[in-house]
Amino acid sequence: MDKFLLGIDIGGTAIKVGQFTKEGTLLEKWDIPTNKADSGKHILSEIAEAIQKRYDLSMIEGIGFGVPGPVSDGVVLNGVNLGWGQTYLAEEFYRYLPNRDITIKVSNDANVACAGEVFQGNAKGYKNVVFITLGTGVGGGILINGQIVDGYNGVGGELGHLVVDKVHQFACNCGKKGCLETVTSATGFVNLAKAKLEQSKEPSLLRQYDNFSAKRVFDMAKHGDKIALETVDEACDYLAYGMSLVAMSINPELFVIGGGVSNAGNFLIDAIRRHFFKYVYPFITEQKIVIASLGNDAGIYGAAYLVRQ
Amino acid sequence: MDKFLLGIDIGGTAIKVGQFTKEGTLLEKWDIPTNKADSGKHILSEIAEAIQKRYDLSMIEGIGFGVPGPVSDGVVLNGVNLGWGQTYLAEEFYRYLPNRDITIKVSNDANVACAGEVFQGNAKGYKNVVFITLGTGVGGGILINGQIVDGYNGVGGELGHLVVDKVHQFACNCGKKGCLETVTSATGFVNLAKAKLEQSKEPSLLRQYDNFSAKRVFDMAKHGDKIALETVDEACDYLAYGMSLVAMSINPELFVIGGGVSNAGNFLIDAIRRHFFKYVYPFITEQKIVIASLGNDAGIYGAAYLVRQ
Repeated sequence: MDKFLLGIDIGGTAIKVGQFTKEGTLLEKWDIPTNKADSGKHILSEIAEAIQKRYDLSMIEGIGFGVPGPVSDGVVLNGVNLGWGQTYLAEEFYRYLPNRDITIKVSNDANVACAGEVFQGNAKGYKNVVFITLGTGVGGGILINGQIVDGYNGVGGELGHLVVDKVHQFACNCGKKGCLETVTSATGFVNLAKAKLEQSKEPSLLRQYDNFSAKRVFDMAKHGDKIALETVDEACDYLAYGMSLVAMSINPELFVIGGGVSNAGNFLIDAIRRHFFKYVYPFITEQKIVIASLGNDAGIYGAAYLVRQ
Repeated sequence: MDKFLLGIDIGGTAIKVGQFTKEGTLLEKWDIPTNKADSGKHILSEIAEAIQKRYDLSMIEGIGFGVPGPVSDGVVLNGVNLGWGQTYLAEEFYRYLPNRDITIKVSNDANVACAGEVFQGNAKGYKNVVFITLGTGVGGGILINGQIVDGYNGVGGELGHLVVDKVHQFACNCGKKGCLETVTSATGFVNLAKAKLEQSKEPSLLRQYDNFSAKRVFDMAKHGDKIALETVDEACDYLAYGMSLVAMSINPELFVIGGGVSNAGNFLIDAIRRHFFKYVYPFITEQKIVIASLGNDAGIYGAAYLVRQ
């Protein structure tokens, strides 16, 4: 058997591990719970232990890690959800291995997810790609010439915190107001819809619910509900604006949209396209935008991508 | 004598040529007028002729070009100021040389200016740098890992056309409204000052002029003129905002500010700093920002940088 790669996605509740051929074919995936006790200091040793139980270490070409926090030059600057402070991940992980024969690399989880889509997802084969994930929050990842842009402070691709909204000024978890996340995350769509329901007397199917999800907003929009349609349109205007700012900076060949909100598919992409070009014309007149295809597995694929040859 | 590099900055009125050692020491510089006759089709042959008159070609290691237009993968997509359409610059230039022994590279002039500051200017030694030039227009250039980011459509670093102003909505030459250029170029500072003079009854030293320059606005601001101070503050807020968008995307180690407006020096940088962090905190808490040091020579330095080994 040929040597293989491991891609490890360290999340706040589970650590997902994927075993891949060097070409990026997933052989198996499994996970262990994230042990956050004692400021997360058992996490790396437990991963090392699980790997050594399962595999012959001499068969592992490299191990890539995606972590929930900023990474710069291979150093995890912090991992608040894990309880981690600054962590020299490779150095520490080697302590739990018998030798240093295995290549170890690490990057931020959203950047790694971008790399995953480039490795085996809908961005396969592209080298200049921007990934935006619209979930509970909004994350982003950037690849230029096939390389992740970690950034000097590990802030590369922090697109959810571009300040884009100067109208509603919803408070963001980061402490600022008007971040992209506040108007285009799943919560952001709901924020916008609720504001519209309050400000208008327009009848809307959404009025029958005390609470509703972004998916509900999309479903109602697809049924022609005016408030829901306006919500999707406004959120996608903010998203298109945020994307335009990245486009005028690094001009990627492809944008990939992932996360739960991206389940809206072409309905979402069409709405983004309606607004994108007004911000980038005449410099950019065509832009490829696709929906991500790897879902939650993007992280393990991208972590493996980090250590491919 | 060792082999040397040539850096060539093709402008709308003059073509500047710099001869450099491989380490980047400028040996001499000279220029020829830009012949825009016949859609600029004599430009490259006249450069080749001038070079062959002056130098022994076998001593030239490489020739780098900066051109006023978008460049992608070595192809100049257009050069409106020169009369050029799509131009395979290296291919065409080789036609005027006896052989193909000389490396030829090309990039956009603002991107090349960024590379120049990295080669021998105030950004020397940095690898992740964003350059913003505040002149008649606003241009930008981005280097990541020491490589220019040309972008898929050659639009990499087109920071002057980030849409940042939704208040004044001054018309931009590109056809859009509210581009960074409309509020932070030399003309942009004047646009803002004139709007303030009209909207307010505040006495101002600027009222004695029918017309004034950005420099005048800075001079008056340094003397405490309230309208001038407000102008600088608002323009620098837009500039800081535009910079924040790039910072949250690619998180460079250093910003370099060039162009005529940058003669305001620390007065300008202090005003940018007053606004920058409100858009990037808590993700970025420190940011190096410096004034460019090569002036109009940044182009020849950066063009030579393209072909350094």
